[in-house]
Amino acid sequence: MTRARNFSAGPAALPLSALEKARDELLDFHGSGMSVMEQSHRGAVYEHVHEEATALVRELLAVPDDYAILFLQGGASQQFAQVPMNLLGPGKRGDYVINGVWGEKALAEATASAKVLGGEVREVASTRDGKTYRRVPRQDEIASTAGAAYVHFTSNETIHGVQFAAEPGGVYPDFGDTPVVCDMSSDFMWRPIDVSRFDLVYAGAQKNLGPSGVVLVLVKKSLMDRMRPDLPAIFRYKTHADAASLYNTPPSFGVYLVRNVLLWIKEQGGLAAIEQTNREKAQRLYATIDAHPELYTCPVEHGSRSRMNVVFTLPDEAMEKRLLARAKEARIIGLAGHRSVGGLRASLYNAVSLEWVDALTSLLEDFARAG
Amino acid sequence: MTRARNFSAGPAALPLSALEKARDELLDFHGSGMSVMEQSHRGAVYEHVHEEATALVRELLAVPDDYAILFLQGGASQQFAQVPMNLLGPGKRGDYVINGVWGEKALAEATASAKVLGGEVREVASTRDGKTYRRVPRQDEIASTAGAAYVHFTSNETIHGVQFAAEPGGVYPDFGDTPVVCDMSSDFMWRPIDVSRFDLVYAGAQKNLGPSGVVLVLVKKSLMDRMRPDLPAIFRYKTHADAASLYNTPPSFGVYLVRNVLLWIKEQGGLAAIEQTNREKAQRLYATIDAHPELYTCPVEHGSRSRMNVVFTLPDEAMEKRLLARAKEARIIGLAGHRSVGGLRASLYNAVSLEWVDALTSLLEDFARAG
Repeated sequence: MTRARNFSAGPAALPLSALEKARDELLDFHGSGMSVMEQSHRGAVYEHVHEEATALVRELLAVPDDYAILFLQGGASQQFAQVPMNLLGPGKRGDYVINGVWGEKALAEATASAKVLGGEVREVASTRDGKTYRRVPRQDEIASTAGAAYVHFTSNETIHGVQFAAEPGGVYPDFGDTPVVCDMSSDFMWRPIDVSRFDLVYAGAQKNLGPSGVVLVLVKKSLMDRMRPDLPAIFRYKTHADAASLYNTPPSFGVYLVRNVLLWIKEQGGLAAIEQTNREKAQRLYATIDAHPELYTCPVEHGSRSRMNVVFTLPDEAMEKRLLARAKEARIIGLAGHRSVGGLRASLYNAVSLEWVDALTSLLEDFARAG
Repeated sequence: MTRARNFSAGPAALPLSALEKARDELLDFHGSGMSVMEQSHRGAVYEHVHEEATALVRELLAVPDDYAILFLQGGASQQFAQVPMNLLGPGKRGDYVINGVWGEKALAEATASAKVLGGEVREVASTRDGKTYRRVPRQDEIASTAGAAYVHFTSNETIHGVQFAAEPGGVYPDFGDTPVVCDMSSDFMWRPIDVSRFDLVYAGAQKNLGPSGVVLVLVKKSLMDRMRPDLPAIFRYKTHADAASLYNTPPSFGVYLVRNVLLWIKEQGGLAAIEQTNREKAQRLYATIDAHPELYTCPVEHGSRSRMNVVFTLPDEAMEKRLLARAKEARIIGLAGHRSVGGLRASLYNAVSLEWVDALTSLLEDFARAG
């Protein structure tokens, strides 16, 4: 097998060792004579996997003890609705910082939730620029969130390649005392973060963590205490926190794969080591793009350029198609931009190797030279 | 590897061929150089798998064209809330038939949903008997559901081993013109059903269909037209029906495994053939239990005895523990009853072979003879 060089935005490439482990024990997990996906979620075998995955998240991200770590279902898209359902209600307000389409979607779901369950939502910043987004807002462009039940932002907009705190040492906005909710789906587990800056973080697994079908949520217990208690139990974060994500049957094979991926991250030296490689990957790709301004254009402003999703365009669609065809020949796949914006996009998640990035930059150099 | 004889209630045993296929192509799906779980859900490779899974459900169950087939997340537990969210509202009523704990849970979630979103819920039948359930209700025990927005029932109660239409040729209750919603989680895809008798059916995959993390929903389009349009998009069935379950990232590896399992069912000769084997399995096990009334007791009334989950007790807990230990030596696992009721339970889903059932009945015979 020649492994494809997969730059997809998610579901995305996974570390080969995590997949090989899954393959090798798919029919017989630790001598049980059963697959891990055939194990009862109330049995010791699966519970050990589940606890190991949770403990690895806590260790790798240094998650403080007063945060619950939850493995839920429905992806970030369900979190768009679940967050306001838990935090809004009559007299409560949710503030939204918008720097891309996923933030827009989160706001739309919060608007619907507020209409049927009470409360209001407000856009406190937007960097929309015509039909797209090219940067994150500056601190002075964000209206005060004082009095809000929470403020929500998207730390990396996968479609536009726009990222907060993208530069080394970069900082997230300061929201004062307002509880901070962050969609980190494509920005999660590729570098250390200071979890204590956030009150609730969620991330779909299918970027840096594992397969689709699992969403990881970190939630501060003090925020949980302020959530509405009258929702159906399945939608309350507290339900899942009290049951260690075993209130109902978890997506057990997905959690198992997340655990395999986290073990791999740990073997690589943890998030500080992974961050170095990830920054090197992005640096090489952006340098190649910038070296050929007549051909390649990154529409994102420098300070906001995502280290996870590198978007760029060519002078016309026909050239983009030619490049995609050339890429395919070199077994480089997943480069087409999101259908809503077009162009090209290379996602550089943890499992994308430096070698793959070098193959991509070589292709871009060749294409610039010879077409 | 000696494969365990797995009688778990779910996650449960899966057909070996479905797992072997998953193992063999885990790292390289159809020459793509990638796992199926690394494929973009918007790409042709995954879309083909997704469409194949949907088409197999339609074919095997003969699902009429005016029903959408949805692959969603959150399990049956989320459906407990999602159904009333979509179907209730001010002035609308949901009626519940209760013949076990899962029905109780569905009613509790509907009650919470009605409180925050409007509407009311009503219990129209209950066969609760002390702390347990021993049968389904008779038609004449179910109050009229006239005027209800829907009636909900649980066709097989996994914990109590109580099943509707359990006997060959058995029929479901007649609810007149009231739209019928049915939780079929542990009752799905082991025999043919007349889908047109239902307006919405849901089933967690981790019984007869695949791994946990996928829930299958069949929903009649005329019912969808009557659902409230103002919910967050992620919770509306219509959102998912309009997008063929690709509104947001699906649990793609789970859907792929469901497809593998459905292919296996088709290879076995489809649901009519599978039903014969399943009935034979249940017949042999119940016959063994009934042959030793001094030792084994099935608490369920004859006409309601589940063909999927066979529950029975021994005279005391110490004997049950001794039997469980003996079973483990014979690599027979998953026999402990649900923690809420104790006793023993053998789940006889599709992937449980006749050979496994014979091993279990031999064990029960030996234990009755020699202790």
